[in-house]
Amino acid sequence: MQIAQVRGTVTSTQKEGSLTGVKFLVVQLLDEQGEPIPGYEVAADTVGAGAAEWVLISRGSGARHIAGALEKPIDAAVVAIIDTVSLDNGLLYSKRQQYY
Amino acid sequence: MQIAQVRGTVTSTQKEGSLTGVKFLVVQLLDEQGEPIPGYEVAADTVGAGAAEWVLISRGSGARHIAGALEKPIDAAVVAIIDTVSLDNGLLYSKRQQYY
Amino acid sequence: MQIAQVRGTVTSTQKEGSLTGVKFLVVQLLDEQGEPIPGYEVAADTVGAGAAEWVLISRGSGARHIAGALEKPIDAAVVAIIDTVSLDNGLLYSKRQQYY
Amino acid sequence: MQIAQVRGTVTSTQKEGSLTGVKFLVVQLLDEQGEPIPGYEVAADTVGAGAAEWVLISRGSGARHIAGALEKPIDAAVVAIIDTVSLDNGLLYSKRQQYY
Amino acid sequence: MQIAQVRGTVTSTQKEGSLTGVKFLVVQLLDEQGEPIPGYEVAADTVGAGAAEWVLISRGSGARHIAGALEKPIDAAVVAIIDTVSLDNGLLYSKRQQYY
Repeated sequence: MQIAQVRGTVTSTQKEGSLTGVKFLVVQLLDEQGEPIPGYEVAADTVGAGAAEWVLISRGSGARHIAGALEKPIDAAVVAIIDTVSLDNGLLYSKRQQYY
Repeated sequence: MQIAQVRGTVTSTQKEGSLTGVKFLVVQLLDEQGEPIPGYEVAADTVGAGAAEWVLISRGSGARHIAGALEKPIDAAVVAIIDTVSLDNGLLYSKRQQYY
Repeated sequence: MQIAQVRGTVTSTQKEGSLTGVKFLVVQLLDEQGEPIPGYEVAADTVGAGAAEWVLISRGSGARHIAGALEKPIDAAVVAIIDTVSLDNGLLYSKRQQYY
Repeated sequence: MQIAQVRGTVTSTQKEGSLTGVKFLVVQLLDEQGEPIPGYEVAADTVGAGAAEWVLISRGSGARHIAGALEKPIDAAVVAIIDTVSLDNGLLYSKRQQYY
Repeated sequence: MQIAQVRGTVTSTQKEGSLTGVKFLVVQLLDEQGEPIPGYEVAADTVGAGAAEWVLISRGSGARHIAGALEKPIDAAVVAIIDTVSLDNGLLYSKRQQYY
């Protein structure tokens, strides 16, 4: 999976029928220093990630294994909202600390 | 998924039998500023996207989950025509505004 | 899918049993100007593409959905011989015009 | 598969239900000289890899074939803790030698 | 598929149970001039490729379609030992000529 940050949304009315009701988030990929790197994904979201939150995204066929998406034509999905990222050189990110 | 812009079509008469009747669109990938980036896809289209429209494409096995394509040898498909792309720094794209 | 040009063949006698009889073509990827880009694929071919022809290739699990290949360990296949590629700035390629 | 080194962990409480109990490791990809290259994966781990250990990771649908993960929305997994990497120009890595 | 050259082996005792008995080869990717390019794969091998041999590798879900690997968490496999690679500008490689 990749670490990414929620940056926006995509809306569409004319789409594959099975995508009705699916929320599309624009997420920017982050590197292992937590810095944005070129590259984004439009990911289906069922965990309810909010603006600027750090999330884990899964791509390829794994994305269809989020709840209720097995037959949907998606190739990227938000699978978790990140609480912490700890690396050998210390805590890279903590969701709680974002709000103090 | 990726945001792309319809740029053309590919036709073929000598092809895998299961591809008969499939419409092939050439779509150019766009970055998160809406600028074309090197890289295109030839995507199967069942939603009826028109020239220059912004679309969402799905790649890999997800592409085969558009209507009627589960057994077709495709690896990219248009899954939605985009209405809006909203980012934390504002509205990046609105289909309606393209025609005013 | 990607647009590519047939550049050669690969032969092998010592291989996975299920690959017996599969023709392997070396295809060079083309960009949206029709120019070769670094990167090639060795693709299974069942449509009978000839030297220098422009073809559509499908990669990943989609490749196994060409006729008779569902259980074969392939990850790229020629799925169509291209007749035309039309872009918003004109006709990029026409198979017929190659022979006049 | 790719050779990678364990560099940290990711935690999440708000996630896809099927990911409950899955351990997420941050692994840095290594090149064929054993040097870190830009790029990391957050990989599900069931083999119990420790900090700084060299591991083999599998990506895409293969990741879901680790024990008990077939229905989980993951796209990368640690599948082995590496003992040795031997190349034509000699032994690149030996886990045992790391501790002498 | 990609053309690669066998460069070494990886061993592991602590791994996913289903990988017991699987031979892991380090293979270096070659470009269409037969030159090594940055990038390697650790590929499962069931065809018995030897050191320095040119092989075809398949990646993604196709890798699991080598004999007996459908449930194994692999994402790359050696599927053939190459005899010849012929391109429009001549014979790039012949296994037999390597030994004269």
